[in-house]
Amino acid sequence: MDIRIAVVGPCASGKTELVRALRARGYDARQCVQEHSYVPTMWQHISRPDVLIYLDAELPTIARRRNTDWDERLLMEQRRRLSHARAHCDLYLRTDALSREEVVQAVLDFLKSSIHETTNSEQTPLDDTMSHHNRLMTLLEITRQLTAETDLDRLLELIVSRTTKLLGADRTTLYLLDREAGELWSKIAEGTTTMMIRLPVGHGLAGYVAQTGEVVNVQDAQHDPRHALYFEKITEYRVDTMLAVPMRDRAGSITGVVQVLNKRVGVFTTEDEELLTALASSAAIALENARLHAQVQRMLDSVIATLAAMIDARDRQMAGHSQRVTDYAVAIAQQMGLPSERIELLRIAGLLHDVGKIGVPEAILTKTSELTPEEKHIMRDHARLTGEILSNVHFSDDLREVPIIAAQHHERLDGSGYPNGLRAEELSLESRILAVADVFDALTSHRYYREPVSDQEALAEIEQGAGVLFDADVIEILKLLIAEGKIHHD
Amino acid sequence: MDIRIAVVGPCASGKTELVRALRARGYDARQCVQEHSYVPTMWQHISRPDVLIYLDAELPTIARRRNTDWDERLLMEQRRRLSHARAHCDLYLRTDALSREEVVQAVLDFLKSSIHETTNSEQTPLDDTMSHHNRLMTLLEITRQLTAETDLDRLLELIVSRTTKLLGADRTTLYLLDREAGELWSKIAEGTTTMMIRLPVGHGLAGYVAQTGEVVNVQDAQHDPRHALYFEKITEYRVDTMLAVPMRDRAGSITGVVQVLNKRVGVFTTEDEELLTALASSAAIALENARLHAQVQRMLDSVIATLAAMIDARDRQMAGHSQRVTDYAVAIAQQMGLPSERIELLRIAGLLHDVGKIGVPEAILTKTSELTPEEKHIMRDHARLTGEILSNVHFSDDLREVPIIAAQHHERLDGSGYPNGLRAEELSLESRILAVADVFDALTSHRYYREPVSDQEALAEIEQGAGVLFDADVIEILKLLIAEGKIHHD
Repeated sequence: MDIRIAVVGPCASGKTELVRALRARGYDARQCVQEHSYVPTMWQHISRPDVLIYLDAELPTIARRRNTDWDERLLMEQRRRLSHARAHCDLYLRTDALSREEVVQAVLDFLKSSIHETTNSEQTPLDDTMSHHNRLMTLLEITRQLTAETDLDRLLELIVSRTTKLLGADRTTLYLLDREAGELWSKIAEGTTTMMIRLPVGHGLAGYVAQTGEVVNVQDAQHDPRHALYFEKITEYRVDTMLAVPMRDRAGSITGVVQVLNKRVGVFTTEDEELLTALASSAAIALENARLHAQVQRMLDSVIATLAAMIDARDRQMAGHSQRVTDYAVAIAQQMGLPSERIELLRIAGLLHDVGKIGVPEAILTKTSELTPEEKHIMRDHARLTGEILSNVHFSDDLREVPIIAAQHHERLDGSGYPNGLRAEELSLESRILAVADVFDALTSHRYYREPVSDQEALAEIEQGAGVLFDADVIEILKLLIAEGKIHHD
Repeated sequence: MDIRIAVVGPCASGKTELVRALRARGYDARQCVQEHSYVPTMWQHISRPDVLIYLDAELPTIARRRNTDWDERLLMEQRRRLSHARAHCDLYLRTDALSREEVVQAVLDFLKSSIHETTNSEQTPLDDTMSHHNRLMTLLEITRQLTAETDLDRLLELIVSRTTKLLGADRTTLYLLDREAGELWSKIAEGTTTMMIRLPVGHGLAGYVAQTGEVVNVQDAQHDPRHALYFEKITEYRVDTMLAVPMRDRAGSITGVVQVLNKRVGVFTTEDEELLTALASSAAIALENARLHAQVQRMLDSVIATLAAMIDARDRQMAGHSQRVTDYAVAIAQQMGLPSERIELLRIAGLLHDVGKIGVPEAILTKTSELTPEEKHIMRDHARLTGEILSNVHFSDDLREVPIIAAQHHERLDGSGYPNGLRAEELSLESRILAVADVFDALTSHRYYREPVSDQEALAEIEQGAGVLFDADVIEILKLLIAEGKIHHD
C-alpha cells in the first residue's frame, strides 16, 4: 500500500504518535513541524502527497481569542496560508477535545472510509419495496424535517442519513462547494470528533457534477473514467453504483453535491434521480437558510462582544472586565444546571452589564482618590443607565429580560444595592449570579484606588456577605469552581 | 344593514371622511377622537361594536422614532392601550401611504370581504382534476417555495395563494395566534395598503380550531353552530364549505389556523384534509423560521443603532450625528440608484463610522479652543480606530466592506485625508458618499469651536472641494436632495 500521507500541525498536536501509528500500518507517512517545510522536498520528485492531514491545535486557540466557535471562516484563513500545500485530499482534524489515541483512531477511521458516512443507528431497510406514493410522502416529510433544522451541523447529518434511507443506498456524502478555493468540502462530526475533508473541483464524479451541474447516474463506477479510483485506494471502499446531483441556491448557482453510493438492490433508477434531485433542492435551500441564520447570529454575537470591549476600553483598568464577568457568570450558571436559554440570557446580560458606564465621565471613572458624594452618585447611575440604553434594543423573546438582569448587577439581597434598592425576592437568580461574578472580578482586578486581592481573599470577602448581600448558593458554586481551578483571576 | 362600526384614530387620519362614507352606504358608523372615549357610551346599552376600525396615523410615527419598521410589536403596544375597546372584529389600517379616498376604499373593500384573500392574477384552475400524484408533487414544490421565502409578509401571501390553488378552493385566510391577547390575527398587504384584522379565539370556526387543535371539515357552514354568521353579515361573503387546520410550531404548540373556503367543485375530501394538514405543517415551520430570522435581524439592527447613539452621546454636541450622517448617505445612495445591498452596506458603515471616537478622551472631544497638534493627532486617530474595532466584528459576506468604508470617511480624493492618505482611485463610491454626508452634518451642526452654518452655506463650502476633496457627482446629488427638501438640517 503506497499511500503517501503528510501530517502537518504545531507541536503538542500528537503528530509524532500519529505518524508512528500510520507507518506501523504500512502507510508512507511523514511529518513536518512547519507546514511550509514539507513540499516538495518530503518525497523526492513528488510534490503532491495523497492525503494531507492537518492536526489542528491552532484553530481552537484563534477561535477562543476571537470569542467565536471554530468555524469555516477560520478554516479558510488556515487554508489560504496552506495554499501551496495541496494534496489529492486534505483532512482537517480538530484535536482539542481528543486524546492522542483518539486522534490516531479518528485518522484511521477516516482512511478506512468513514468519509462516506453511513446511517448509524437506524439501519436502512430495503426501501426499494416502498411504493412510489410512500416515497413521495417520505420525501415530503424529509423536506419538512430539513426546513425545521436550523443548526448547520445537525442539518448536514440529517440530510446524509435521510438520503441514504430514502434512496435505499449504502452511503451518502454531502459536499459543499468552496467557490473561492475551487474545492468541495465535507464536514464530519461524530461525538467529539470534528473533521473536514477537502477535494479539488473537477476530481472524481462529485467534482464532475460540481463543474458541470449535470445529474450523474453511474452503473459501473469501476469502469467510469471520471471516478476517482485513488480515493478508493485511500478509503478501501469500493464503489459500483453511484448517483450524484448538484445542489443549487436560490440564485441557481451550484453550492454543493449530494452523492449516493452503492444501491442496495440493483442500480439507481430514473425515479431515484427525480427523488434525489427534489431532495437536494430542498436540502440546498435549508442549508442556505441555516448559513444565513448562522451568519446573522454570529454577526450579532460579535457586535455585542465588540460593544462590551469598547466600554471596557475607556478605562485601561477595566480591560476585559465585561468578558471575564460573563465567563464567571456562565460557568456558575452551567454548574448550577440552568437551562441553555437562561444561560444565553445571562451571557448577553453579562457582556452588556456596564454599557451604562458610557454616561460616566472619564474623570470620575479613572479617579485615583475617593469619589465625592456627587461623583459617587454619577458613578452609581451607570446601572440605571445600562437598563435605559438596553431598553432601546429589540431583544428577541428569549432575551427579553436582558435589560432587567443587566441593570440589577449592583442590587443586593438586603435592599442596600442600587439603582432601585430591590430585595432578595425581587431579584432573579440570573441577577444574583451576575452580582457575584461582577464583584469577584472587581476585587481581583487592579483598580485606581486599591491593589487587587487574590481569588481566595476575594472569595472570603464575598462570603462575609452571604445571604445578606449575595446569594449563598451562588457563592457556594463560585467556591467550588475556584477550588476546581475553573474560575481563576490571580 | 345594522352593522355597528366604531372608527378610532388621531386627527388628520381621515376619520371624518371615512365615517361619512360609511354612513352614506348605510352603516351605523361613529367616530371618536380619543380611543378611550367611545366605549360604552357610543351605542346606548351596547358596549361592543361589530367592527372597530383603527386608522393608524400614529404607529408609523412611533416606528420612525424608533428607527424600525411598522411591526407587530408596535401593534401589540397599541393593542394593550386599546384592550378595553373590543369588537367582534378589529381592523387596523396603516394610512400613511394612502390618500383619504384610498382609506375609504380600503375599508369598504375590507367590509366587502377582501378579508378572505383570493388568489389574484393566476386564476385558480379546477385543480380537482389533478391526479393525486400531481397534487403531491405540487405540494412538494410549494413546500420548497415556502422554505425559500424568508420575508414574513411575502411568505404569508405565498401560503395563501398556493393553498387556494392546491385545494381548488375559492378563498383562503391565514390566521396567526396571539397567545397573550387570546386572539387570531391576519395581515393583509395589497400594494400600499397594509391591514390587520384581529378576532377573539373561540369565535367562529377558525377560533374553534385554534382552541381545540382539531381539523374541521364543514360541508354546510350555514347550519354549523360554530360558524360566525355575523362575519358573513359584515363581509357579505357566504361560506358553504370550509376546511380549517391548525398550524403548530416545532414544539407542537398551535401558532395559527389555515382556513380554506368554498371548494369550487363538491366538498372538501379526506385527501384535501391530508394535503392541507401537510401544507399547514410546512407553512408553520417556514413562518417560524421567518419570524426567528426577522427577530435576530431586528435585534442586530437595534444593537448597531444603540451603539451608534452611545458613541454620539459621549459628546452632547454630537447627539444624533451618526444617525443623520447615515440618513444623508442613504438618501444620496438611493438617488444615485445604488443596489439595495450596497445601500445596506453604506447604512451600517454610516451608523458605525465614528465608533473609533471611543478612543478619544472627552477632554479633547469637547475642547472649545483649538486643538494642539498632539491633540489633533489623537482626534484624527479615531478613523483608524474605527477600522480596527470593526475588524473584530464577523460581518456577513454582504457587509464585509463595512470596516473599510467606515474607516475611510475622512479620506479625500487628492490624498490629503486620513488615516491613510488614499487617493481618488482607491476610494469606493460608498466611502465618497459617506465623506460628503459626514462633512455636511459636521458643518450644519453645533460644534464647540464654531456656530453651525445653514444647509446652503455648507453646500457652498463643500462645493469648493468638488473633484479635489469630494466626489463631484455625490455633491451634485446632495445639492439636488437639498433643493428638493429631502435633506435638510437647518
